[in-house]
Amino acid sequence: MTQYFHYPYQLQLESGEQLNQIKVAYQQFGNPGANKTIWVCHALTGNTQLNEWWPGLFAENGLFNTTEYRIICANVLGSCYGTTGPNDLPVPLDFPLITIRDMVEVHDLLLQHLKITKIDILIGASLGGQQALEWAVSKPKLIVNLILIASNAEHSAYGKACNEAQRLALLADETFGRKGGGKAGLKTARAVAMLSYRSYADFKIKQEDVDTRIADYKAASYVAYQGDKFTKRFDPYAYYTLTKSMDSHCIGRGRNGNVNALESVKANSLVVGIESDVLFPIEEQQYLAKHIPNADFGIINSVHGHDGFLIEYDQLNQLINEFLYHGFKSYKPTTLKHKTNVN
Amino acid sequence: MTQYFHYPYQLQLESGEQLNQIKVAYQQFGNPGANKTIWVCHALTGNTQLNEWWPGLFAENGLFNTTEYRIICANVLGSCYGTTGPNDLPVPLDFPLITIRDMVEVHDLLLQHLKITKIDILIGASLGGQQALEWAVSKPKLIVNLILIASNAEHSAYGKACNEAQRLALLADETFGRKGGGKAGLKTARAVAMLSYRSYADFKIKQEDVDTRIADYKAASYVAYQGDKFTKRFDPYAYYTLTKSMDSHCIGRGRNGNVNALESVKANSLVVGIESDVLFPIEEQQYLAKHIPNADFGIINSVHGHDGFLIEYDQLNQLINEFLYHGFKSYKPTTLKHKTNVN
Repeated sequence: MTQYFHYPYQLQLESGEQLNQIKVAYQQFGNPGANKTIWVCHALTGNTQLNEWWPGLFAENGLFNTTEYRIICANVLGSCYGTTGPNDLPVPLDFPLITIRDMVEVHDLLLQHLKITKIDILIGASLGGQQALEWAVSKPKLIVNLILIASNAEHSAYGKACNEAQRLALLADETFGRKGGGKAGLKTARAVAMLSYRSYADFKIKQEDVDTRIADYKAASYVAYQGDKFTKRFDPYAYYTLTKSMDSHCIGRGRNGNVNALESVKANSLVVGIESDVLFPIEEQQYLAKHIPNADFGIINSVHGHDGFLIEYDQLNQLINEFLYHGFKSYKPTTLKHKTNVN
Repeated sequence: MTQYFHYPYQLQLESGEQLNQIKVAYQQFGNPGANKTIWVCHALTGNTQLNEWWPGLFAENGLFNTTEYRIICANVLGSCYGTTGPNDLPVPLDFPLITIRDMVEVHDLLLQHLKITKIDILIGASLGGQQALEWAVSKPKLIVNLILIASNAEHSAYGKACNEAQRLALLADETFGRKGGGKAGLKTARAVAMLSYRSYADFKIKQEDVDTRIADYKAASYVAYQGDKFTKRFDPYAYYTLTKSMDSHCIGRGRNGNVNALESVKANSLVVGIESDVLFPIEEQQYLAKHIPNADFGIINSVHGHDGFLIEYDQLNQLINEFLYHGFKSYKPTTLKHKTNVN
């Protein structure tokens, strides 16, 4: 059940702009009376319904003992799933730039509202990992265990170019700017995004035609279909806003650089990468694991690319389970490649 | 100087449709009286001015002795640089599907018109390589030396998805369909294409910001700028047509499969791949070299991705020079990784 936190004050954004009286949508799962908290940061187009988009981790009888934990997932600032976002303004494109730090500040206000003083497990993938990392650096004593999946210390030039190409798709749609407009642009943007969420090998395995046609190929239908499907569940203005948020991620900004910021993390940390990820390539997680003190590092073997974090549950659960409950550093699975303590 | 060949008959297309009275734009370089011919097949957005877009190979005092060769480059069917294309119709989107085979058939008509009976060197990269390969299979006795760069036997599911995402960008532009329309969509399409022409490493090296800004990143400006620049030189309808042509490439269609078709190549062949190419990854060139009889195979070391064929002239020239003039198979440069005779 979605709940709302209404913050009655002015929120100062990193850009210098302000937002007034924001609301934050969140859901609680597990045991609301438990004294241990898991906080889940969702990715770019995620929502608070984490048992639906991360069933392999948070469905009933999953990895976590739901009687032991209170599990919270809040929609990010700038999104379209209940928290204040562009569509709350008369002109959606007037919505200000939201950085990852702004998102985390809003989560932190919700945390205070809920009178939670310790997060036992903070977990996020992709943009969710960017938030979790930011929170771990800005409030180092708050977090006991930090799990960062397919994420990075600073969004890459390539990632920013991907996001810009998608925003250009929105801007090329003449209806973008009007209330309810931008659907065709959003369809294109999602099709472009699919190219970076998956991999060459993934397309080869799943989207090849078996006949010898000369047009109307399966791979083309697939990205167009994914684009159409996405327009039914997401808002073009929120997409425009959140891709800029992802671009803004730089853990070292104003903190003497990325290395210095990462070295300030106090949480027990697990960093997970997916070997075929072209959007957040494995070198980005190696970098995180190298500079976060005593971080554990695991690699998921997958052809599915960045989307592997929504697919490869067996490996993900195995890594998280070993990290949390069995002393990851001594764990040497034969089916997983991983390095421990790469500092 | 651009010349035109007017074909006075009906051209039967692979799709079953026909085109009437097509014209073919071409240029001749080198020595028009020479009895040896180099034929260059240009890539997706190329034109006949090959000394401008491939200066590292075809500028004065380049790799080829221009007194020894007659060098020909013809604009492909469906393009916007002089040969018949969508803008020759009252409604550009009525232009039919042009397959790689149709392009090659038109080149072959020009060849006959020029009374050329033997191509000493047929060379092409990317879509140009797709044409060159198609020609080498359809007219095996015509070609003495075949050079295929960053190309493939069949366009991949991933490549088709990339092209479809770009066509969706055109279709999301409401002006696409009208004469002169589609510029904003084309800008987006080119920005998307840049993500596949370059590489993560290339963006990291060249497009990272040095300050700690929170918006207006260099990588974003770069792809937007490339998009704008492209709209000044290329036509949206030709782009729509030619991306479908690329998708149609399948050397084995109607020939008992790709392996069978490749095994029928009679030319001395050099296949070159670029190690960071994500759009035509090296495995595609390995496949070509494996199945084309006695093919030589060279890898260009580069971070520049697919666009490396327009950048890495030293390595490209070295490979071609050794292949043509020094018996490639015995050549072991220390700076180049390559395998010879991978059959």
